[in-house]
Amino acid sequence: MPYRQTIALDAMGGDHGPDVIVPAASLALQELPGVHFLLFGDERRIQPILARYPLLANAATIRHTEKVIGNHEKPSQAIRSGKDSSMRLAIEAVKNGEAQSIVSGGNTGALMAMSKLILKSLPGISRPAIAAVFPTMRGKTVMLDLGANILCDAEILMQFALLGAVYARTQMGVEKPTVGLLNIGSEDMKGHDQLRAAAAILSSVEFTGKYHGFVEGNDIAEGTVDVVVTDGFTGNVALKVAEGVAHLMGDKMKEAFTSSLITKLGAMLAYPALRKMKKQMDSRYYNGGIFMGLDGICVKSHGGMDEIGFANAIKVAAGLVEQNFNKRVAAELEHLMSQESFITSLSAQANS
Amino acid sequence: MPYRQTIALDAMGGDHGPDVIVPAASLALQELPGVHFLLFGDERRIQPILARYPLLANAATIRHTEKVIGNHEKPSQAIRSGKDSSMRLAIEAVKNGEAQSIVSGGNTGALMAMSKLILKSLPGISRPAIAAVFPTMRGKTVMLDLGANILCDAEILMQFALLGAVYARTQMGVEKPTVGLLNIGSEDMKGHDQLRAAAAILSSVEFTGKYHGFVEGNDIAEGTVDVVVTDGFTGNVALKVAEGVAHLMGDKMKEAFTSSLITKLGAMLAYPALRKMKKQMDSRYYNGGIFMGLDGICVKSHGGMDEIGFANAIKVAAGLVEQNFNKRVAAELEHLMSQESFITSLSAQANS
Repeated sequence: MPYRQTIALDAMGGDHGPDVIVPAASLALQELPGVHFLLFGDERRIQPILARYPLLANAATIRHTEKVIGNHEKPSQAIRSGKDSSMRLAIEAVKNGEAQSIVSGGNTGALMAMSKLILKSLPGISRPAIAAVFPTMRGKTVMLDLGANILCDAEILMQFALLGAVYARTQMGVEKPTVGLLNIGSEDMKGHDQLRAAAAILSSVEFTGKYHGFVEGNDIAEGTVDVVVTDGFTGNVALKVAEGVAHLMGDKMKEAFTSSLITKLGAMLAYPALRKMKKQMDSRYYNGGIFMGLDGICVKSHGGMDEIGFANAIKVAAGLVEQNFNKRVAAELEHLMSQESFITSLSAQANS
Repeated sequence: MPYRQTIALDAMGGDHGPDVIVPAASLALQELPGVHFLLFGDERRIQPILARYPLLANAATIRHTEKVIGNHEKPSQAIRSGKDSSMRLAIEAVKNGEAQSIVSGGNTGALMAMSKLILKSLPGISRPAIAAVFPTMRGKTVMLDLGANILCDAEILMQFALLGAVYARTQMGVEKPTVGLLNIGSEDMKGHDQLRAAAAILSSVEFTGKYHGFVEGNDIAEGTVDVVVTDGFTGNVALKVAEGVAHLMGDKMKEAFTSSLITKLGAMLAYPALRKMKKQMDSRYYNGGIFMGLDGICVKSHGGMDEIGFANAIKVAAGLVEQNFNKRVAAELEHLMSQESFITSLSAQANS
């Protein structure tokens, strides 16, 4: 029977390795019938867990290796010494066509460095970026870059805008996604030179999305735009500030509700509503950092995720393959580069 | 009777002008007996409100002017045409010694530009910064810069660290405040060159605080350090992301609690605990952006604040005056500049 698609899993990545990743694959398979998994890692650890999931066992192949990339290895070190690691072999499976995507919960820096080295960037993309989807007041917003590129010029920010817009259209079902550039004010004269140059390009070219203008930090949670574009330094800080505040508020809420018998009773009565709220904001359902701009689909799961979270990352990868994300991006890039206004903007920037 | 201190209030700044600022001054006076207020603005609007607060009326003097800086005026425009504005006159009152501090809820950019122009920076401080205090899991953290300086080199970041440390010591009562540099990872090799250079200086010099190392976005809410130092671009984004997420979670909570009769009953029972939580996180009790590094105390209130919030900003200003904040900073700067390791680090950086 031909498979719909094959997903390579780094079964050893993340805090719990196969204990979480095998059950996660089983969970994802329920929603992705016809998908095949390649499980890269230690057969002696994977096999006993896989045996508990007969349906998955029928749809999965173990590729044994004992080598694992550590969480604290530097990217350069991982590249030098990670030859037969589960992460590297899983990426290579995408490169040689055995799989269409790879999902890993391992070392982010190593995963990005190896993916760039092995899969290469899509033609026309200078720097792959990390993107993720966030819950907002109006639905969902995709933001990139979340940490792959510290310094980004206007052309790179333009490429991020394009990647984000194709994502919002194909994966979030937004016909004409709005794109905002993250800045510290919405007025035209605010921010770095690169941001103003990127704004000039985005306002003058035709692409899948619609340029909205500058947005501010609060616009992410407000859902002002479908796509938020920023450099990897700012994006990473923004992501972690959001995680920290959500954690703080969750903690304070728990503290409040357990402060007395009466408040505990109140919490019990409100429990179904609180659970619904928790689910809406649950980071597991937003898990999956997408390495956009690579010539192959690569999704990074948060290392500490449980099976529900990791299964979500698998579904993100499967969705990108299903919707021909990279092919769409390539077509968009070609369209962009054929536009005179794009060429003019770029050369104006280079001469300024 | 001699006054403890005099505070100049821009009575026309903010969304509600004297309607909020006069009651706020009355509220602050209850905790600051012996303080004198100069109220700058339209006497016809201020007088009738002031008349309702006899105690305040005894401790306040109106300085009439009709000119107000608009919220959308650019800083350069405000400087050119804001000669007799309530904001400018209030700042001048600090310059000419009539008041020891100024509090305004008006246009942030105009307030910073005018304060720099009129009050000047403290000797040895290159760039005044905006700082604010945030609630965390462990108490409070002060963060700067929140938007005054987009690009910051290592020396400027060092000055921010020093300002923040003196603040944490004098206003938060921390004997030896820990200082972290906001970055996208805690490893030494992460981030911009300026951050690594600032880390080298902070590790080698002796100052009021103790350098902790790099911190990440989530460390702000976690309260990992007493002082978080960052450039004004990143700090502004972080501040607004935090506001946005807090707002989103508050909304989702309200939605959850009002979804049915049962959950409403639950919310009623849990109300005292929820109110306590809300108060702990209430932005009004953290209101007051401190313009640190000016030769004079200037505090910016959020424009939309009510009287409780604006009163908090007044108390922040009064506390800084009471504790001789600027004198302490000047002594710290002198101590810093006398250190050989500081001079060596700076010249090493200049030659790199």
